[in-house]
Amino acid sequence: MAIPSSVEIVEVGPRDGLQNIPEFLDTEKKITLLKLLIESGVKRIEATSFVHPKAVPQFRDAQEVMRAVESIPGARLRALVPNLVGAKNALASGVRELSFVFSVSESHNKNNVNRTRDESVEELRQILQLKEAYPDMVVQLSLATTFGCPFEGEIQEKEILKYVEAGGKMGIDTITLADTVGYGNPRQVRQILRACLQEFPSITFGAHFHNTRGMGLANSLVCLEEGIALLDSSIGGLGGCPFAPGATGNISTEDLVFMLDGMDIQTGIQIDGLFKASQFLKENIRDLQITSALFKAGLPKGEKYICKTL
Amino acid sequence: MAIPSSVEIVEVGPRDGLQNIPEFLDTEKKITLLKLLIESGVKRIEATSFVHPKAVPQFRDAQEVMRAVESIPGARLRALVPNLVGAKNALASGVRELSFVFSVSESHNKNNVNRTRDESVEELRQILQLKEAYPDMVVQLSLATTFGCPFEGEIQEKEILKYVEAGGKMGIDTITLADTVGYGNPRQVRQILRACLQEFPSITFGAHFHNTRGMGLANSLVCLEEGIALLDSSIGGLGGCPFAPGATGNISTEDLVFMLDGMDIQTGIQIDGLFKASQFLKENIRDLQITSALFKAGLPKGEKYICKTL
Repeated sequence: MAIPSSVEIVEVGPRDGLQNIPEFLDTEKKITLLKLLIESGVKRIEATSFVHPKAVPQFRDAQEVMRAVESIPGARLRALVPNLVGAKNALASGVRELSFVFSVSESHNKNNVNRTRDESVEELRQILQLKEAYPDMVVQLSLATTFGCPFEGEIQEKEILKYVEAGGKMGIDTITLADTVGYGNPRQVRQILRACLQEFPSITFGAHFHNTRGMGLANSLVCLEEGIALLDSSIGGLGGCPFAPGATGNISTEDLVFMLDGMDIQTGIQIDGLFKASQFLKENIRDLQITSALFKAGLPKGEKYICKTL
Repeated sequence: MAIPSSVEIVEVGPRDGLQNIPEFLDTEKKITLLKLLIESGVKRIEATSFVHPKAVPQFRDAQEVMRAVESIPGARLRALVPNLVGAKNALASGVRELSFVFSVSESHNKNNVNRTRDESVEELRQILQLKEAYPDMVVQLSLATTFGCPFEGEIQEKEILKYVEAGGKMGIDTITLADTVGYGNPRQVRQILRACLQEFPSITFGAHFHNTRGMGLANSLVCLEEGIALLDSSIGGLGGCPFAPGATGNISTEDLVFMLDGMDIQTGIQIDGLFKASQFLKENIRDLQITSALFKAGLPKGEKYICKTL
């Protein structure tokens, strides 16, 4: 399998990152962040979550945020929806690209969205029926805890394949396998990817890694080696769990783009622009630890990069 | 190329890590650290550096440290020597395993050891002549800045091959390619490794990565894929440059062992024991940032690991 010559990065910081920050970030600042990301060349962004404001107060402005940015040319913005109500609210707000998420671990799904996995599958089916009313709706599926669950440990491959199949049968053509808590390792990622790619050749697979235990870029490299060209990442590496101080969040967009640049894989994203977005977050969120290694260390000296003091 | 079933880890924290810590760590504490590492199952350790005490005051106790630990069974300890004087001092102290280092970048070598590369090669030749007096002496070579130089940027492959050849011609059988400043990326690491392995099949290659820009484990994975079974790492990820606040140092031994464990690659090292060593450092070095992601996040839940609160 040849390594892809270009990779589509889905920036999930405004959703997965901000979700873990208790302090409300002003709507105007959220919009500025999204604009900075788009200016850096990011083409796909998970911009917010249509979740109940009591569950995640950070996203009580989901509608305002989406309305302000979705007409900006050059980027495809999507919203996470954890259930049918969220999907309806997103669609009513004019959002047409939805990311539905449930966990392949039963106990994590119950904890996260208060449903069994099969109830979530049924809810996805109902969401997809909204296509009659909204024919331009696009729904992608993210399977949380694919590479391990904080309650159950390792997830059996057949469980993962079962829920990929469930999504595929309903017509979902893009499925992101998510390492929600940063348990995945390269051997396991390769094994699960190969099983999925072999069983479901018509589905486009993406991957979503947290760098909680430092393996996020190594796991991303395995994805590239297996031909995956759709990767989630988060500006500054936002997304650390507030209950695990010092733990890193999603793989950082800066670090991922830097690795891809070095491998001559196109992303269309400028690292300087990403640094502006991270710097903006640092200045606007109290006590925020930017976990991007590149942001902290700066770009190296070389023909391509001029060494900078950040 | 099959991924190796076991990997030899060279713990370089006591040398590469402590080298960057200005505060002197008491000799007794250095010895305790080494004992904790050996108890965790680490079999090879770069324990100190026979460098001029004015250059690196941290290692003014090199002789005492080596004398105290080198007779402990179960581990091979070595000392870094940057020049002939250091080698003579190490040998006179009873050390028999030496790691000689010079940079494949001319400007970095001048800055680091105040010699041209060819002067360093000549010095290595003189060190190897000491084998007549010390027949049980073992010398390995580390080539610094192989994957990039802070002054010159990227290093040409032919320069790297030239100095590998110089070492090989003098009878060096183990050469570690070092990413001294964390510039390397997976494409480049694979390319340079393949060139070295093809040109010099009788040399055992090791690798030494800094995680400065987050790619240390991804680069280590490439090494495994290319059949390399000798990797340097540093307890707690020590080794960040004091002039780049927040920048991470060497790849952390905890994170590397955790990745290898997950890939079913044997190391003989127990992570619990490594955590004790990191915790000891944290408690004994003021303001020390342990950059190991695993140390910060803790082990995941699963059959193999029991989730812990650190």
